[in-house]
Amino acid sequence: MAMERDGERIARLLARAEEKGLDYVLFLDPENIHYLCGGVIDYSAAYLDVGEGRIVAIANVMEAERIPKVTWVDDIIVYYRDRYDGPLESVKAENLYDAVGKVLDGGKIGVPYGFISKKEFDLLSEKLEGLIDFSEDLWRARMIKSRREIALLREAARIVDEGIKWASERLDRGLSEYSLMVESKCYMLRRGADKTLDFLIVASGPNSAYPHWRCSDRVPRPGDAVTLDYVASYNGYFGDETRTFFVGMAETALKRIYEVVLEAQVEAIEKAGPGVKAKEVDEVARRIIERNGYGKYFTHSTGHGIGLNVHEPPRLSSKSEYTLEPGMVVTIEPGIYVEGLGGVRIEDMVLITEDGCEVLTSLSKAIEII
Amino acid sequence: MAMERDGERIARLLARAEEKGLDYVLFLDPENIHYLCGGVIDYSAAYLDVGEGRIVAIANVMEAERIPKVTWVDDIIVYYRDRYDGPLESVKAENLYDAVGKVLDGGKIGVPYGFISKKEFDLLSEKLEGLIDFSEDLWRARMIKSRREIALLREAARIVDEGIKWASERLDRGLSEYSLMVESKCYMLRRGADKTLDFLIVASGPNSAYPHWRCSDRVPRPGDAVTLDYVASYNGYFGDETRTFFVGMAETALKRIYEVVLEAQVEAIEKAGPGVKAKEVDEVARRIIERNGYGKYFTHSTGHGIGLNVHEPPRLSSKSEYTLEPGMVVTIEPGIYVEGLGGVRIEDMVLITEDGCEVLTSLSKAIEII
Repeated sequence: MAMERDGERIARLLARAEEKGLDYVLFLDPENIHYLCGGVIDYSAAYLDVGEGRIVAIANVMEAERIPKVTWVDDIIVYYRDRYDGPLESVKAENLYDAVGKVLDGGKIGVPYGFISKKEFDLLSEKLEGLIDFSEDLWRARMIKSRREIALLREAARIVDEGIKWASERLDRGLSEYSLMVESKCYMLRRGADKTLDFLIVASGPNSAYPHWRCSDRVPRPGDAVTLDYVASYNGYFGDETRTFFVGMAETALKRIYEVVLEAQVEAIEKAGPGVKAKEVDEVARRIIERNGYGKYFTHSTGHGIGLNVHEPPRLSSKSEYTLEPGMVVTIEPGIYVEGLGGVRIEDMVLITEDGCEVLTSLSKAIEII
Repeated sequence: MAMERDGERIARLLARAEEKGLDYVLFLDPENIHYLCGGVIDYSAAYLDVGEGRIVAIANVMEAERIPKVTWVDDIIVYYRDRYDGPLESVKAENLYDAVGKVLDGGKIGVPYGFISKKEFDLLSEKLEGLIDFSEDLWRARMIKSRREIALLREAARIVDEGIKWASERLDRGLSEYSLMVESKCYMLRRGADKTLDFLIVASGPNSAYPHWRCSDRVPRPGDAVTLDYVASYNGYFGDETRTFFVGMAETALKRIYEVVLEAQVEAIEKAGPGVKAKEVDEVARRIIERNGYGKYFTHSTGHGIGLNVHEPPRLSSKSEYTLEPGMVVTIEPGIYVEGLGGVRIEDMVLITEDGCEVLTSLSKAIEII
């Protein structure tokens, strides 16, 4: 139909499904429907017919009209309860699960159990046998981004670049953390984001000591470290970036921390590349921070995969079992957080390439005093 | 701790849990954790000890600091993997599910299966016996809003009122549907919304004939009906309102449709009250629309409950089994959609009271030509 299919992405998914001997891959959640179909469809299901390589939407009647415009599905089957007068193939069903049961003829059906509620699973199981967990295989496919997905992630990286830059120039203007967050959301929406996280992190002064800080009415003051951790998506694909700035002046202790985090972050990026274990990247960052005496203040892992979800495999942690491959996009974001003093985190999005990696986010990491 | 508990809400939940003979009610999803604790906690679980009436968070170590400030939980148990040096009660665990298994001592544990993934359910089941589906009981509690929840829903209604009013005054200024949506989001965020739906509906001219239209680059033109369906939340509680405006002039056929939808909507609100079946409200709206010859163009149900989720029980449809009770907040939103011509939908949020109902959204419904 209207949109051209991302053949690279679908080939990767098909290969995983064939490897597992599946007849169908079935999705009911918005992210994976987006992955399979190229766009969002609500109140609907979509499946990949593994043998034929066809992509089919089982669509709520009110969604049917939009689907050809926003996806690359091969077929649409409308499900209806009372009546359907439209031109599309259709199935009368009590609800979506009943419709799926009537459309699929059994066989081995891969469903990602991490993306379907227990209740949905039970409703489906009443209608269908042969459901198999496809979570890990799906992540193995989704972890490697196609050229088209990488292009979208570049746009998302551009948007968070712009958002952080915009806010950083306004840290000394008397706006509260909360106002900075709201205005940054608006700015990123205007710059092309289709959504932002509900809570962006604007953590100033003592609040910067909490890696999961959200926002408060506090106004950044001279001497503060201010951490901006922004997440926004472009056509569903997320950008995620963090910078820490200083207002007016940087205290020596915080400046020292900044230098250590920066060294850890740069060296971890230096390490990242194809064939490198995810945990080795974490190790590099952690070793530098430990060597400088801040080990116990680096309380989280070094990064995570990113795509249609903000946090995806592979995690870059000390216990991660993944090995980096070309096409993966991960964040690299060490931090040091000292209660009472403040914290620093620096985060970039990094694309693993054939011969190393490319940093997708582009803001300067030189220490910056606003 | 810091926040005062919403006793009315918790008493209602406790009564449902006792009726079902539960020892614990356990939540892992953000909405229900918000419901139980009064605020959002990420990467964590929370439970209600039914015998003692205590509310406990099993918290990711990075979330622990925020919890006393944003919730009314009685206790916090931090789970950690490697080390925890803080002052709170803690448990060493491989992950959240392991932590829950170590904290709860078995017994009958109610979990809403509609809010937990099949994968999470399996992980929990490895650690705990006695899981029971608590979905329907939970909805029975959540459907009836406490005074505090109603106050939040009033604020949300105010925000969507303001958003629609703001956009309606700008329909003739050459902005596209998409720009109107983005600017409306920004406006509502500035007016206190903590989030909006990712897609607000701005459907102009022929697009208004699709009830699930999202947005396009189309600029509203003279003669267009423009439907604005806005959803935004205040402290997690959603407001939802729809108005249809006319640009420059209203064609006779669309004006006629507007009058029929308005009559259906007003009469449905007139019908709504305690002891009335949800399907009777749908019936009133549907009968008026059918009598006027537009029956087949009213393709959705008349409304839905609203709260921490945009769409909650009770649904106001022809097959709904619910009866309206004081404290329920529902939308009433009939519509008529004629392909090629356009559509009209009018939606208010309505609080069921002891002796009828109160409309929470407050924009005029008189036909308005911009």
